[in-house]
Amino acid sequence: MPENDKQSLSMVTCTAPVNIAVIKYWGKRDEDLILPINSSLSVTLHQDQLKTTTTVACSRNFQQDRIWLNGKEEDISNPRLQSCLQEIRRFSRKRRNTGDSTSDVSGVSHKVHICSVNNFPTAAGLASSASGYACLVYTLSQLFGVESEQLSAVARQGSGSACRSLYGGFVQWKLGEQLDGKDSLAEQVESESYWPELRVLTLVVSAEQKSVGSTSGMHASVETSQLLKYRADVVVPSRMEEMIRVIRERDFPAFGELTMKDSNQFHAICLDTYPPIFYLNNTSHRIISLVHRYNQYYGETRVAYTFDAGPNAVIYTLQDHLSEFVQVVRHFFPPEVTQAHHVMIITLNSELKRDINMEPTPKGIRYIISTKAGPGPCVVKDPNHHLLGADGLPKKSVISD
Amino acid sequence: MPENDKQSLSMVTCTAPVNIAVIKYWGKRDEDLILPINSSLSVTLHQDQLKTTTTVACSRNFQQDRIWLNGKEEDISNPRLQSCLQEIRRFSRKRRNTGDSTSDVSGVSHKVHICSVNNFPTAAGLASSASGYACLVYTLSQLFGVESEQLSAVARQGSGSACRSLYGGFVQWKLGEQLDGKDSLAEQVESESYWPELRVLTLVVSAEQKSVGSTSGMHASVETSQLLKYRADVVVPSRMEEMIRVIRERDFPAFGELTMKDSNQFHAICLDTYPPIFYLNNTSHRIISLVHRYNQYYGETRVAYTFDAGPNAVIYTLQDHLSEFVQVVRHFFPPEVTQAHHVMIITLNSELKRDINMEPTPKGIRYIISTKAGPGPCVVKDPNHHLLGADGLPKKSVISD
Repeated sequence: MPENDKQSLSMVTCTAPVNIAVIKYWGKRDEDLILPINSSLSVTLHQDQLKTTTTVACSRNFQQDRIWLNGKEEDISNPRLQSCLQEIRRFSRKRRNTGDSTSDVSGVSHKVHICSVNNFPTAAGLASSASGYACLVYTLSQLFGVESEQLSAVARQGSGSACRSLYGGFVQWKLGEQLDGKDSLAEQVESESYWPELRVLTLVVSAEQKSVGSTSGMHASVETSQLLKYRADVVVPSRMEEMIRVIRERDFPAFGELTMKDSNQFHAICLDTYPPIFYLNNTSHRIISLVHRYNQYYGETRVAYTFDAGPNAVIYTLQDHLSEFVQVVRHFFPPEVTQAHHVMIITLNSELKRDINMEPTPKGIRYIISTKAGPGPCVVKDPNHHLLGADGLPKKSVISD
Repeated sequence: MPENDKQSLSMVTCTAPVNIAVIKYWGKRDEDLILPINSSLSVTLHQDQLKTTTTVACSRNFQQDRIWLNGKEEDISNPRLQSCLQEIRRFSRKRRNTGDSTSDVSGVSHKVHICSVNNFPTAAGLASSASGYACLVYTLSQLFGVESEQLSAVARQGSGSACRSLYGGFVQWKLGEQLDGKDSLAEQVESESYWPELRVLTLVVSAEQKSVGSTSGMHASVETSQLLKYRADVVVPSRMEEMIRVIRERDFPAFGELTMKDSNQFHAICLDTYPPIFYLNNTSHRIISLVHRYNQYYGETRVAYTFDAGPNAVIYTLQDHLSEFVQVVRHFFPPEVTQAHHVMIITLNSELKRDINMEPTPKGIRYIISTKAGPGPCVVKDPNHHLLGADGLPKKSVISD
């Protein structure tokens, strides 16, 4: 157990990344264990831009497990949080009992204090449950000295897609076959350094209204969409094989096309749900048109979109096309306020502008986050970065008003 | 041949209805013969509100076949028009050769002048090809004395869904099996008087941009949607059986739910097409939400929507709920200008308004057409209603500026 201080307070801080699926996860075959009806595949985003940071402390002096999320204490009795805590403690005891652990695991019998923050606003509409549960599980595993290939199965029980945030680069979550879910695990397909030219833009779209949550949305789809079973059983297995192949070949046009098709099919399933679920709004539709017209202009797939359970677009492209496409987006969706961004300013090709032939829509896109593939969870060594103080409570800087 | 005048000019005028599918036709297995990949089922709308009127004249003095659509002469060489003309002439000659005809069919060797108008503006975004081709084929058949169950196969070769406009009431278009399409025919399921309480509202939605045409749209779906084949082969056959059953039972909640599900699945297929096709806009999405919230309030399906290849909603409901639902629509989509409509004004239930819990959106809906199921094509007896004059040319009142 690291950092045993005089008050027998042990503390670990870690960070974990967001991931964006290119073959979508939609639908559970087991709601409690969070077992999916199909495999999925994602790109882990770099933590320079988007990450969750979590500190977990344990002490014999703590009276109860407690959790603070983005500066606010939350109810620790949440069943998904409980699943993760119980599973990690079970692993830790197992290791202690088998004498398998190299670290002090006495803390496993103590209560924990958990403090977690995202470096991106909730209002951005980016799902934080994947990075959040990945970070929680990874931090607990560090604190309790758990090393296991099953870690992703624990994170999965917090939030399905969280299992994919335990690895960097290109990650698949294999469906698995076992009833207990032990083989429904994430594994790395290729590391973040495998395709260094790949770039990722998040276009944060102004939303009029809150979307249906993904848990209830996928439940409704499993119950009512006649097309979903066909997607899960027939379409996705061959798409998984193809996606792994095109990533290994670094074939951007094929990667981009398959990514767009799978995003579209996921939203088609949402529409085939009863009552139908709409995650895409008019701005999303316009981004989709823009991407197809941009690619059409060049006669090849240079840019690809994918959309999760909300109107925000995530764009995959290559370094060579990044600045131009950002200029195109800023031209057709003029920003409300000037924003700092790390993209070279270039003059937009007027023929391209004309061929795209769309009316600019102000205020459709609130901001753009530019990033690339990145590593999995990391331990933060510097104790100054702990979110909890020596008293085991969140530091002042973490507390929200 | 009716109305043989002194100048050996024969003329017939007929009207034909619009139909709105509740099980959607989307995808052809044969592009030339217009053979569908699945059966479909529609309600024929009453011609009091929406109809095409067509006059066909033939004369030995005509130099060539000619056609005027909505007051403007069009190119008669259009292959679909040619198919219909050729097929009707073939039927007529066959009848003459077998001595089967009771009328004078000498006109079949003469050239025709065709004049056709819709009583609804093209800008309404209502597909006019179904009523248009149904009316053309029916009028030609009257002029040439053709009586055949194959008439719907001729109309089908003009525009697929036109075959369903040859009958009143509830009409199915059976997929058929033969390669030549002879068994891909429309037939009446029940007449327009079978379910007299059924009402139909068309909500004409303001469109920002023109949608992809249905011919190219369904071609793209057949080429690229992996879900479409499953829909056509597995989903639709059982939905056809169920739809016929619930119509025969006049079971509105089941009819409405199946209608909405099939509309949603058709639009899901459009989204699964590559590049994706969007026919629904934000106003369409809001109408869908409004219908579900309205039904939710009453705990039963009182109102159902269906959308074709554009953003306009067609609403099915029963007479008892019509006025209230129109008030609800007018409350949440306040009209730009006051319009005459034949619905009793009632005060909207404030609890219902509150429970629906949507912000009113002005200008989303341009106007509402209120109608019901109606009969198939009719012959217009009064010669004053001919669209062509004694000279075989469109009357002045028909010509557009």
